[in-house]
Amino acid sequence: MTLNSTAFLADFTSMSANGATAGGGVDRQAATIADGQNRNWFRGLVEGHGFTVRYDAVGNQYSMLELTPGAPWIAVGSHLDSQPLGGRFDGAYGVLAGAHAAARVQESLTGSSETASFNIVVINWFNEEGCRFKPSMMGSSVYTGKLSAQQVLETTDPAGIRVREALEAIGTIGDFELPVAAYVEIHIEQGRSMEDAGVSIGLVESTWGANKYEFIVHGDQAHTGATIIADRQDALLGASALVVAAREIALEHSTDEHMVITSCGEFNVFPNSPVVVASRVNLLVDVRSTDPDVLAAADADLHARIAAIEKMANVSIERGAEHVWGAKAYDHAGLKLAADAAESLGLTHGVVRTLAGHDSTNMKDIVPTIMLFIPSVEGISHNERELTHDADMVAGVDLLTEVLLRVVRGEFVSASGKAQDSALESSAVS
Amino acid sequence: MTLNSTAFLADFTSMSANGATAGGGVDRQAATIADGQNRNWFRGLVEGHGFTVRYDAVGNQYSMLELTPGAPWIAVGSHLDSQPLGGRFDGAYGVLAGAHAAARVQESLTGSSETASFNIVVINWFNEEGCRFKPSMMGSSVYTGKLSAQQVLETTDPAGIRVREALEAIGTIGDFELPVAAYVEIHIEQGRSMEDAGVSIGLVESTWGANKYEFIVHGDQAHTGATIIADRQDALLGASALVVAAREIALEHSTDEHMVITSCGEFNVFPNSPVVVASRVNLLVDVRSTDPDVLAAADADLHARIAAIEKMANVSIERGAEHVWGAKAYDHAGLKLAADAAESLGLTHGVVRTLAGHDSTNMKDIVPTIMLFIPSVEGISHNERELTHDADMVAGVDLLTEVLLRVVRGEFVSASGKAQDSALESSAVS
Repeated sequence: MTLNSTAFLADFTSMSANGATAGGGVDRQAATIADGQNRNWFRGLVEGHGFTVRYDAVGNQYSMLELTPGAPWIAVGSHLDSQPLGGRFDGAYGVLAGAHAAARVQESLTGSSETASFNIVVINWFNEEGCRFKPSMMGSSVYTGKLSAQQVLETTDPAGIRVREALEAIGTIGDFELPVAAYVEIHIEQGRSMEDAGVSIGLVESTWGANKYEFIVHGDQAHTGATIIADRQDALLGASALVVAAREIALEHSTDEHMVITSCGEFNVFPNSPVVVASRVNLLVDVRSTDPDVLAAADADLHARIAAIEKMANVSIERGAEHVWGAKAYDHAGLKLAADAAESLGLTHGVVRTLAGHDSTNMKDIVPTIMLFIPSVEGISHNERELTHDADMVAGVDLLTEVLLRVVRGEFVSASGKAQDSALESSAVS
Repeated sequence: MTLNSTAFLADFTSMSANGATAGGGVDRQAATIADGQNRNWFRGLVEGHGFTVRYDAVGNQYSMLELTPGAPWIAVGSHLDSQPLGGRFDGAYGVLAGAHAAARVQESLTGSSETASFNIVVINWFNEEGCRFKPSMMGSSVYTGKLSAQQVLETTDPAGIRVREALEAIGTIGDFELPVAAYVEIHIEQGRSMEDAGVSIGLVESTWGANKYEFIVHGDQAHTGATIIADRQDALLGASALVVAAREIALEHSTDEHMVITSCGEFNVFPNSPVVVASRVNLLVDVRSTDPDVLAAADADLHARIAAIEKMANVSIERGAEHVWGAKAYDHAGLKLAADAAESLGLTHGVVRTLAGHDSTNMKDIVPTIMLFIPSVEGISHNERELTHDADMVAGVDLLTEVLLRVVRGEFVSASGKAQDSALESSAVS
C-alpha cells in the first residue's frame, strides 16, 4: 500500500474523532482517557505499518521504523495532547505527518540500492500543552535533561492526581530509552504571518524568548458589602491591575523591529464567592519577545510596576514558579537543507520565527534540529476553530518526507552523530 | 434549667464545631453535609427546650415556642449557613441568640400572671450567603414573595446539583407554612463603625442600596504565545479592566456624607489554561451606597465605562442577572423600642446602617422589623478570623430577650397584626 495524500487525510480525519468536541475541535489533555485513546489509536496505526512502539518513564511514545539494522536513530515528532477545547491540528498533525513521512521514506528506499544511514523514530512527546500538568513541554524537558523524571512523575493535576498515576491509568508508561542524533518537527504556525505572506512552508529560524511567571497575589478575605474600601486588601483587584499592566507593557515596549507579547492565561481566585473579597489570586503572566534586550526591558518594567499595584490594592505580590527560555536559533544547516527540499518540490517557503514553545525548543538544545511550519487560517489556535487547509497539510507531509529522506541519507548529521556543516555552538540569536 | 450567659456561650462553642475549619472558622455552605449537620444539631438543641421544628418548601427551618396557644406568631431569626472558610458568628450567632432569647422569654413569663400576645418562632433562613446557590437571601426571598419556590428549587450549584436535591439529601425540606406579624434579627456588624464608636449595641436604621450585576465578557480563545496583540480578543483583560474601573468608581463617587463601595467577589475564567487567551469571563460586580442618587450616579459611571473597556480589550460585555435593592429604612417604632430596651439594661448603643444584605432586608418589606447589631472586632467578616467578644455576644442575647419580651407583650405590633405607632409606608430613605 502506498501512503499517499489521500491516505494521510483519511488518517487525520480518523484521528480527529478521538476526543472530538461538539465545536469541531478536540479535548485530549495529557494522560486523560481521550489522550490514552488517541495514543492507542496511533499505536495501532503505526504497528500496521511495521513500526515498533515503546514508552519511556514519563510516557513519551516512541514509534520506531528500522531501515538499517544497527544504525543510529533520528527522530521526528510533536505531541498528540491538546488544550481543553483545542484545535485538531496543534501537535497531532506533526505526529501523524511524521509517521506517514517515515513510512514513505521506507517505501522509497525499498527496492533501491541505497542503504539508510539512520533509522527513524516518531516521538509523541508527553504533555506538550501543560494545561492539566504544569509546566508545558514536559516530556521533551525530561528527555533533554531540563526536568527530572522523578519531579515530573510526582507533579499533580488540580484534582491531586499525579502524572505517574495518570500515565499508569492509560497504560502508556514504560522504561524505554533511545538516544537520537537529530530531530525534525513539523507544526502548524498558530500565527498568521505565513498566510499573510502567502507561503505554504515556514522554515523556523529561531524561537522567541519567553519569561513565564506565576504570581501569587495575597490579600485578606472580607465581606464585599460590609468592609469599607480603606480596610480592604483585595487580591482580585491587585491581580486585575497586573493583567492590565501586562497589556500596557506589551504596547509600550514593542518596537517596529521587535514585538513584545504579554499574556495571562490562567487566573484562579480564592475563595471566589459572590460576597467575599478575594484573599488570594494565582495567575500566570508571560512576556515574550524576539529580542533579548527588549524582553529584558519589558520584564523589568513588569516587575517595577508591582510595588505600585501592591500599594494601590493593599496586597502583597509574590513571584512563584518560573519557566524561562531565551530567544535561540535553530540549526543553520537544517534551515538550508529544508529550503533546498522545499525548492526541489516547488513549494513556496519563507523564514519565520516561532512565538510559541514547541518540543523542538527543547530538542534543539541537545541535537541538530529542523523545525517546519505549515499555515494556520487567520492564525487561530488553541481554539476549536483552528484550521489548516488540506492542501497545506499535504504539502507539509511531502516536504517532511523529502527532509527525512535527506536526513537518513546523512545530509544533515553524519552517522557518527556529528552535525554536517553545522554549528550548534552558535545557536544564540545575535 | 435557666438559660443564662454561660449556657449560651457553651452552646455557641458546641455549634461552632459543626463544619469547623482548621483556621478557626466554619465552612457550612447552604445544604451541604456540614449545614445539614448543624441544622440537625440546632433542632436537637431547641427540641430539648420544648420547641417544635418544621421545614417549609425551600428548607427554611422554623423552631416554634408556643407561649399562648392560638396566639399569632412573631419571628426572630437569621441564618446558619456560612461562606466557604467563613466566620463562626455571621448568621449563626443570631439564630442561636434567638433560640436562647425565646426560651428566656418563656422562663420569665412562666409563673407570672402575664399572658403573651404572641408566640415566638425562631427561623433559620435557607441560604442567606448565596455562595453555593445564587442569589443570596434565598429563603427569605421566597418567604417574602420576591422569588418563587419553584425557581429556587431548580437553581443549581456549580456541580449541577439542584437546591431540591441538596435539601432532600440533608433531610431538611417540608411543606410547612407560617405567617408572622413581626420580625426581629440580631447579627454581627461585619464592619467596624461600632467598635470605632465604642458601643455594644447597634440599632439598624436602614440598609444601603445595592446594585449587584453579573457581567459576561466575551472574547475569543487563542494561543497566548502565537497570537499577536492586535488579533486578540482577551476576555480576561476586559474583565480585569472592569474590576479596576469598579474600584476607581468607588473612590471617585464617595462623598463625605455618602460612601460608595464597589466589589467583585466571583470571577470565573474560561477555559483558564496557562497558554490560552480567555474566551469568556463571568464576574459579579456590586455597587452600594447609602444614598440613592449617589448610587445611581456611580452605577451610570460603571455602565458608561464599559464601551471603552470593550474597545480596549476587543471584547463584548454582556450584562446578565441582576439583584438590586434600594436604600430603605427599618421601622421607626422598632428602633425606639430597641433603644428603650437597651437603656433599661444599661447597654451602650448607637444608630447604624447596614452595608450588607440580611434576611431582615427582605422581611422589613412585608412586616414591621427590628434589626440589631453587635460589634465585629476590626470589622473582619467572611473570614475565619471573624471575631465578636463573649461580652458583646452576651449583651446581645440579653437585649434580644428584652426586645422579644416587649414584642410578645404587644408593644411593637398589636395582636391583630397592625404595627403600633409605626409606618411601614414611610420606609423609603429620604
